[in-house]
Amino acid sequence: MSIITLLTDFGTKDAYAGIMKGVILSVNPSAVIVDITHHIDPQNVIQAAYIIKSSYRYFPEGTVHVMVVDPGVGSDRAIVVLEMVGHIFLAPDNGILTLLMDEGKISSIVRVENTRYFLESMSQTFHGRDIFAPVGAHLCRGMDIKKLGSPLDRQNLVHLQIRKPYISNNNQLVGTVVSFDRFGNCISNIDVNYIKKFSEIDSGRMLEIKIGKTTIAGLSLSYVDTTFRSPLAIIGSFGYLEIALNKGNAKRYLGIEKGDTITLNLKPT
Amino acid sequence: MSIITLLTDFGTKDAYAGIMKGVILSVNPSAVIVDITHHIDPQNVIQAAYIIKSSYRYFPEGTVHVMVVDPGVGSDRAIVVLEMVGHIFLAPDNGILTLLMDEGKISSIVRVENTRYFLESMSQTFHGRDIFAPVGAHLCRGMDIKKLGSPLDRQNLVHLQIRKPYISNNNQLVGTVVSFDRFGNCISNIDVNYIKKFSEIDSGRMLEIKIGKTTIAGLSLSYVDTTFRSPLAIIGSFGYLEIALNKGNAKRYLGIEKGDTITLNLKPT
Amino acid sequence: MSIITLLTDFGTKDAYAGIMKGVILSVNPSAVIVDITHHIDPQNVIQAAYIIKSSYRYFPEGTVHVMVVDPGVGSDRAIVVLEMVGHIFLAPDNGILTLLMDEGKISSIVRVENTRYFLESMSQTFHGRDIFAPVGAHLCRGMDIKKLGSPLDRQNLVHLQIRKPYISNNNQLVGTVVSFDRFGNCISNIDVNYIKKFSEIDSGRMLEIKIGKTTIAGLSLSYVDTTFRSPLAIIGSFGYLEIALNKGNAKRYLGIEKGDTITLNLKPT
Repeated sequence: MSIITLLTDFGTKDAYAGIMKGVILSVNPSAVIVDITHHIDPQNVIQAAYIIKSSYRYFPEGTVHVMVVDPGVGSDRAIVVLEMVGHIFLAPDNGILTLLMDEGKISSIVRVENTRYFLESMSQTFHGRDIFAPVGAHLCRGMDIKKLGSPLDRQNLVHLQIRKPYISNNNQLVGTVVSFDRFGNCISNIDVNYIKKFSEIDSGRMLEIKIGKTTIAGLSLSYVDTTFRSPLAIIGSFGYLEIALNKGNAKRYLGIEKGDTITLNLKPT
Repeated sequence: MSIITLLTDFGTKDAYAGIMKGVILSVNPSAVIVDITHHIDPQNVIQAAYIIKSSYRYFPEGTVHVMVVDPGVGSDRAIVVLEMVGHIFLAPDNGILTLLMDEGKISSIVRVENTRYFLESMSQTFHGRDIFAPVGAHLCRGMDIKKLGSPLDRQNLVHLQIRKPYISNNNQLVGTVVSFDRFGNCISNIDVNYIKKFSEIDSGRMLEIKIGKTTIAGLSLSYVDTTFRSPLAIIGSFGYLEIALNKGNAKRYLGIEKGDTITLNLKPT
Repeated sequence: MSIITLLTDFGTKDAYAGIMKGVILSVNPSAVIVDITHHIDPQNVIQAAYIIKSSYRYFPEGTVHVMVVDPGVGSDRAIVVLEMVGHIFLAPDNGILTLLMDEGKISSIVRVENTRYFLESMSQTFHGRDIFAPVGAHLCRGMDIKKLGSPLDRQNLVHLQIRKPYISNNNQLVGTVVSFDRFGNCISNIDVNYIKKFSEIDSGRMLEIKIGKTTIAGLSLSYVDTTFRSPLAIIGSFGYLEIALNKGNAKRYLGIEKGDTITLNLKPT
């Protein structure tokens, strides 16, 4: 078994993703190719960083994850391979690996330099086809990553400052909405661990969640925990606080935008 | 060979479908995964019921069909496996199986209860990942469905009342538009068998189809059977009456909406 | 290994593409199916002709490419198989093969007539399912194309007049914008070879590219070759001249439409 996942901002209207698969199968005919998504917003490296962090652990160890969200294609930005808890990540060095690196379990990092694993005719505009696809295919055939180039330290890699939740002066936990899913659920940057620590401040009190003009009392356990179309707060399937609507679209109904502030208070019960 | 199909309302912008594939391949590395579609309108169980009914027979016997259109995720709705003409269907018990059950060829039904086939860490928001994917993967490895839980009768399952065509007082066959495809073809709920029976009422007469202000004489055999951009009625590839336009978009051009009435008359020839 | 690619205008909202895969796997359980794209604009044969030309060479020899952009489905248009540089193309005879034929390397062409390789129950509306999928699956099992029907000459096939760049009276090279990718890059019909020949007219001069009110001096080597959000001209990854914006959407920002004229001049340096 040799699984290779693709995570790009190429969309599926153009042939870019299909062409990458042709190159992969040319190098490794037994590769099993899985699309994570090709619909990252164009050049949105942070969105891709969240998605790979939430996804990779559900694939078997040994999986090669190829990420091509690459606004710097053709520049001198590096391409790197990172090995971590049995998974292999191939990506441009533009911060897309930030959240994975924050997990702190890196085994090794290599800079991809050895052109013998690239396509012979190289463009400066489509490294997905010319570098990422063939190198990823060689990796999922079991090639040693050391053959690709020289080792790097994690300090050598681009590390993005991603906005984190914080405790404000008046003892509120403050986070922001970072994305929406197809159902209009509003996903925040507030990890369940932040909420646990915050709640421990005074465990006799009840959590209250505010977003815009909406106030929600306590966390729900499922999307159907409130009455029809009423708002709820829930720890979503990736461990982040979400604002949702029972059988409705919270984004649309509550008028929530990306970047909106979510505040958590502890209220007397 | 072990084929598993996916039919969901997850879209392909988020990583939900990709993550399900990771879980499936973790359990069954030789699974061949086929997307039927991930673009069911959010929580539209009836739309999914039509699509699986039109699709499943084109897959080989033994195929496992996993359907996750599941507005009740996290509630006490059951998850069930239904075996029928050599195919295995895994779905929430919310009516999505209604049209399959109407075919009347069920071999067995089981309630999915055995948590040893679920992911260890279970959410209440993403059973696609935590239950449907691993259970589906075990099923397409050939696991006996009896291991999953206790048997059910078809009377135990949710059965939706789906609007059917009928003969009106003035001897018209009346149906409705239930969906559109990408080409703007307007698909009705009028099965070819209804039309055959209706036409037999007086086989010397000619079928006339009315939708809005458009009147169409007789059925066409192909989309190119009329002059350029003129409307036609045709039995589509799934056996339902469609209103279409030769090389054009009938939905847009004729202003047809979902739920619009289609009436069929028998006229003297 | 038996790879079969799909290139259609079916979209992915309906089950059409999924059903084709079911039929393919029923005939050839070991087929490896790759989507090139299903998002060709409905019935846009020329767009499909460009995409297959840009894509096929990245798949291994022996790959079967199935193209279903077929406004004439159900008419008497032929279905053909074309063999070329080790690749096999299955398509309606409506001009979709025009740009492949222009490469001039055809080994053989056959008209698909033998109904024993079709589905038993045939519709006049979905030949993708009833003819293209099963015939494609037989081809990628290694079936001799001669079994499908009688040989054809390239003169027998529909050949579209596709607008080509030309040298105008005042010695400009004139082309048009033919498509956009997801990033808003504007892809022209000006092949790099046209530019090479044009530049040789007076190699001491500098290339100047005009589109609408925008004038661009010289070709860039990568999308990041100019300052942030400024326009550039570049030979894209498929060998055609593109107008792009460094980290921006050229289509939107420069207001470029399909069919817009691009002119190239040679200026004194």
